[in-house]
Amino acid sequence: MEKVSIFGAGSWGTALGYVLAQNSQDILIWTHRPDQAEEINQHSNNKYLKNIRLPEKLVATADITKAVIHANVLVLAVPTKAIREVCASIRESLDKKVLFVHVSKGIEPDSLKRISEMIQEEIPEQWIEDIVVLSGPSHAEEVVLEQPTTVTAACQNTASAERVQDMFMNQYFRVYTNTDVIGVELGGALKNIIALAVGITTGLGYGDNAKAALMTRGLAEIARLGVKMGATPLTFSGLTGVGDLIVTCTSVHSRNWRAGNMLGKGKTIEEVLEEMGMVVEGIRTTKAAYQLAQKYNVPMPITDALYSVLFDGITTEQAVNALMARNKKNEMEDLINLL
Amino acid sequence: MEKVSIFGAGSWGTALGYVLAQNSQDILIWTHRPDQAEEINQHSNNKYLKNIRLPEKLVATADITKAVIHANVLVLAVPTKAIREVCASIRESLDKKVLFVHVSKGIEPDSLKRISEMIQEEIPEQWIEDIVVLSGPSHAEEVVLEQPTTVTAACQNTASAERVQDMFMNQYFRVYTNTDVIGVELGGALKNIIALAVGITTGLGYGDNAKAALMTRGLAEIARLGVKMGATPLTFSGLTGVGDLIVTCTSVHSRNWRAGNMLGKGKTIEEVLEEMGMVVEGIRTTKAAYQLAQKYNVPMPITDALYSVLFDGITTEQAVNALMARNKKNEMEDLINLL
Repeated sequence: MEKVSIFGAGSWGTALGYVLAQNSQDILIWTHRPDQAEEINQHSNNKYLKNIRLPEKLVATADITKAVIHANVLVLAVPTKAIREVCASIRESLDKKVLFVHVSKGIEPDSLKRISEMIQEEIPEQWIEDIVVLSGPSHAEEVVLEQPTTVTAACQNTASAERVQDMFMNQYFRVYTNTDVIGVELGGALKNIIALAVGITTGLGYGDNAKAALMTRGLAEIARLGVKMGATPLTFSGLTGVGDLIVTCTSVHSRNWRAGNMLGKGKTIEEVLEEMGMVVEGIRTTKAAYQLAQKYNVPMPITDALYSVLFDGITTEQAVNALMARNKKNEMEDLINLL
Repeated sequence: MEKVSIFGAGSWGTALGYVLAQNSQDILIWTHRPDQAEEINQHSNNKYLKNIRLPEKLVATADITKAVIHANVLVLAVPTKAIREVCASIRESLDKKVLFVHVSKGIEPDSLKRISEMIQEEIPEQWIEDIVVLSGPSHAEEVVLEQPTTVTAACQNTASAERVQDMFMNQYFRVYTNTDVIGVELGGALKNIIALAVGITTGLGYGDNAKAALMTRGLAEIARLGVKMGATPLTFSGLTGVGDLIVTCTSVHSRNWRAGNMLGKGKTIEEVLEEMGMVVEGIRTTKAAYQLAQKYNVPMPITDALYSVLFDGITTEQAVNALMARNKKNEMEDLINLL
């Protein structure tokens, strides 16, 4: 039995708590909102997981010190932009080496840091046993219905990845291990760009052929960038690459897809953001990916086209036409760069 | 301008004729049904492409000799099981070396031959300039609406692939070249197995997590087999691999997906086949893939599970549970075999 604390009680943090409680781990979930902690202790979290009865063993607290002291394994399940702040709060109470697990999908704008790099910058080395990233194609809503789900636990140190695998794995939640932290983190973050682009083409009235083309070519350019940054090419063929891309691009529940769809139908970014009323992670990530492509000198035509639409005022039709009108290509010329 | 004949006037053959006629190629399309040829010459083919006005330059004939004599490029657009018979008819009128292009997706049961191998067996070598396979994520219905579509033309001889690229490519129909004929043919055929499996899980009531897992792991096992058979691993990350898989598994129009869906809802194979009233290519391909996995000694757990459901009377629930309960795995162990 592991002593685990989850930081963040959104839909994904709560779903992971559900799995861990079912697996009889000694689990505490932290939220900064006392009323939400109280609700979870009454076995529901209705804003995030409607009509789900949570396990009795899933106990919540709004006291972050208590959550830190409780655990040997800390699971960070907050949005990318809250990672540094939550790490700073955790740091104040840390008194032993712990295993960090993070489940966020993003790249920090400007610094261009991945989540695990942000954790390393915020937590003193002496308190970090290891950092494992847990990622893959997984709607929280389906996990708490105990539907078959597969994810990847990645860490350079295989023993730590296997410890996370043991902690989470059960009959409906299947965990694979991987040593490629960079590839797993990049796949999760960059897929949101492609979801935005797919949403745009659907909004423009295009069909499955265009969607499949964008997803395939999008995956190729994500992999090209990833390999230049040190990732293993095959990771992008796995659950955290193509798997997560499929879930994000073919579900109308995806926030990024919906934002793209509205752009394709002719709304401005300002109108889309106002209507959504929340952060669209893919927009920030497009900027980061555009900067990364320049930094690493990698051709990323879909990212460039999306950047032009979002930040340079090019129309969505012009962007699609430009993509289709590129020179004749050998498919392998693009893909071969992965090796 | 190329002189091209298309053999087969189903939805895909007709859509390719539409593209070639728009590209001002000298195009003739053959069907064995004189009434259908007459209808196409009146600029429609309503059974296969509803409410589409075909280009005036798309001329049809029911005279196969005329179609053979007309062309330097023969495009075969008939079902896998009709390939040998149509090749035999073509052979009788052939009097010069021609370029063969095929667009079918299947593997012949028992012989385990790919389409290009069947053509080589049926047409004397002296009449074959080259064989190019054209494949990729492409619903015919979207192509004739001139929606953005991408496909791959594959031939060991790059010049021949580029000739097909030049013939077909235009503003909405983007053609890439590739030299990996085996990989392109296998990807197109084997994706139908995964579509059946995805249909089953949806029929069982499972969601997007299970779908993404099956597609990802399915692609990995297809690639494992393909590499053993001589394909290039990267081809499976391309348009004819993951691209075609996406179109087939995420569209309810897919015949294989629909058949799987009915199986998942508890119908027997006999009931499904009777209700569909047509061949479900994926069922035949499952048998072929099962045999290929044994012949090449490649682990294909999803193919095995599906074979057990289709031919050994295992229930769909048992098959899904068996897949989820496999040993803990390192994701890379599976993927690494691709290199």
